[in-house]
Amino acid sequence: MSASDGGFPSFELGKPLTGYGVAKILDSTHPNYKKGDLAWGFTGWEEYSLIVSPQILIKIEHTDVPLSYYTGILGMPGMTAYAGFYEICTPKKGEYVYISAASGAVGQIVGQFAKLSGCYVVGSAGSKEKVDLLKNKFGFDEAFNYKEEPDLTAALKRYFPEGIDIYFENVGGKMLDAVLANMRTLGRIAACGMISQYNLEKHEGVHNLALIVWKQIRMQGFLAASYYHLYPKFLEMALPYIKHGKIVYVEDKAEGLETGPTSLLSLFTGQNVGKKLLVVARE
Amino acid sequence: MSASDGGFPSFELGKPLTGYGVAKILDSTHPNYKKGDLAWGFTGWEEYSLIVSPQILIKIEHTDVPLSYYTGILGMPGMTAYAGFYEICTPKKGEYVYISAASGAVGQIVGQFAKLSGCYVVGSAGSKEKVDLLKNKFGFDEAFNYKEEPDLTAALKRYFPEGIDIYFENVGGKMLDAVLANMRTLGRIAACGMISQYNLEKHEGVHNLALIVWKQIRMQGFLAASYYHLYPKFLEMALPYIKHGKIVYVEDKAEGLETGPTSLLSLFTGQNVGKKLLVVARE
Repeated sequence: MSASDGGFPSFELGKPLTGYGVAKILDSTHPNYKKGDLAWGFTGWEEYSLIVSPQILIKIEHTDVPLSYYTGILGMPGMTAYAGFYEICTPKKGEYVYISAASGAVGQIVGQFAKLSGCYVVGSAGSKEKVDLLKNKFGFDEAFNYKEEPDLTAALKRYFPEGIDIYFENVGGKMLDAVLANMRTLGRIAACGMISQYNLEKHEGVHNLALIVWKQIRMQGFLAASYYHLYPKFLEMALPYIKHGKIVYVEDKAEGLETGPTSLLSLFTGQNVGKKLLVVARE
Repeated sequence: MSASDGGFPSFELGKPLTGYGVAKILDSTHPNYKKGDLAWGFTGWEEYSLIVSPQILIKIEHTDVPLSYYTGILGMPGMTAYAGFYEICTPKKGEYVYISAASGAVGQIVGQFAKLSGCYVVGSAGSKEKVDLLKNKFGFDEAFNYKEEPDLTAALKRYFPEGIDIYFENVGGKMLDAVLANMRTLGRIAACGMISQYNLEKHEGVHNLALIVWKQIRMQGFLAASYYHLYPKFLEMALPYIKHGKIVYVEDKAEGLETGPTSLLSLFTGQNVGKKLLVVARE
C-alpha cells in the first residue's frame, strides 16, 4: 500500500500495484546482491521486477523456514507486530491486551507475542471460523465475533471487567470508541491500521477521545518501516519460536497473478483468514 | 475539577466544589506542617478547609514570588505545562509548535517554554484581546482568533506551511481534526484537555484519526498529578525565569467566594483571559 494520497493508502487505475514480496535475484549490479540470492521487500505485483532502490529490500539469510513467511511473520507484518507490541505497547506481565482484526497477518502474531509475555489476550474478528482460529490455534484466552455484538462497549466490558491495558488497533471507528470507554489508566494504544475506515468517503467520527486525557492514555501510530534497524533483533527472537512451534502462522494463499484484484478486495470484506498472500511464481 | 464521573469532570449540586488553592495552615497534627506554614494543593472553595489527605498538598518554600502563582504558574497549571511540553512533547530546537486555548493558564506557559526551547510557536485563542496578549506579552511568533477562521485546516496550513511537529491540545473536536490534517510525520500531541467538548451532551466526532497511523503520530493524555515527583526540578527551572522576567504570567482575578460560580462559567464561554483565580481571603 502506498501512502501518497495525503497519507491514506490508495490504488489508482493504470498505476502498477506495489507490495511486499519475496524475490529471487536474477541479475544485480549492486555489491550486496548476486544472482540466486533471495530477498524480501517492496516489489511489484508482477512476475519480474526491476528494483532500483535496493534499500527497500532485505536479503534472506535463513532458508530453513517457508520462504512465504518473509511476506508475513518474518517480513513487514512480523516487524509491525514486533515494533507495535514491544516498542509501542511496552507490555508488562499480567496486563490485559485486546487486539482487533486479530486473525489478520499482524494480529495473529501480536496475540502470540502477548501470550509469550504473560499477558491476558482477547481478540476480535468477523467470523466464527476466525474466532475459532484465535482460540484454538493461536492460543488467545478469549475471542469474539464483533459482528454478533450489537454493543461493542458492553462486549469489551464483558471480556475485560478490569479494563484494557493495551489495545492493538487495526480497525478504528466505532471499535476505537468502545475501546476508549474500556481502557485503564495509563493504557497504551498501538495504532497499526484503521481498516474499517479506508473505503469510507468520510471517516466515522470518534467521540470518546477526551478519555485519553483523563485516563492518561498514550496512542501512537507507527509503521514498520521506522523500525527495520531492529530486524536482526526481531529475527533472533522470532526464528527459534517459529522453528520450535511456539509461534504458529496461518496464510491464505491465492494462486496466480490474475487472482490478485479479487484477493485484495477480500481484505475489505472480511473473507480472508490469516495473511493474504498471492503466489506469483514457484521455482 | 474532579474526574469521578467515569473520567469526565463534573459538578454536582449540593456537593462541595474542590480545586487547587493556596492556604495557610492554622492548625496541624501532621509532622510536616505547623501553624503559619503555607501550602498549595487540592482544597475547597471555602474560607476554611479541613485537609485530611496531606499528600495532596505541597509546602510552599519560596515566598519571594506572588503567592497566587502557586495556583498557577508554580502550581498545577505550571506542572501541567512542564510535564506536557518537556516530558510528553520531547521538543527539539527549531520545531513547529501549535497551542490551542493558548492564553489560558497552561497554554501561556507552554508557549513561553517553547520559545525558550528555540521552537517556532503559534497559538490560537477566542478574542482579539487574547491574540494580542499571545503576540505582545507572551512572545508567540504568531497567534490567531479561531472564531474568525471558517476553515481551521486552511488557517493552520497558513501558519504552518511546513506542518506542525508538536500540538499542545486543550480543545479537542474540530480543532483536533484540523491539526491532524496539518501534523508532520513523527509529530507529538500532548492531550492536556478538550474543553470544547466538556459541556456537550455527545462529544463531536474526530474524523482524521487514521492520520495518526500514516504520520506515525504519538498522542498522549496526561495529568500533572502523575508528574509531581518532578516538581523540585520544575521549580529549579521556573523560579529563575520568573524572577528575571523571562517568563511572564497573566492572572484573571475575581474577588470573593460569591463570585465563584460566575467565574467558573466564564471558562466555558471564553470570557476569561489568563489563569482564572478566585480570591477567597487575603491576610
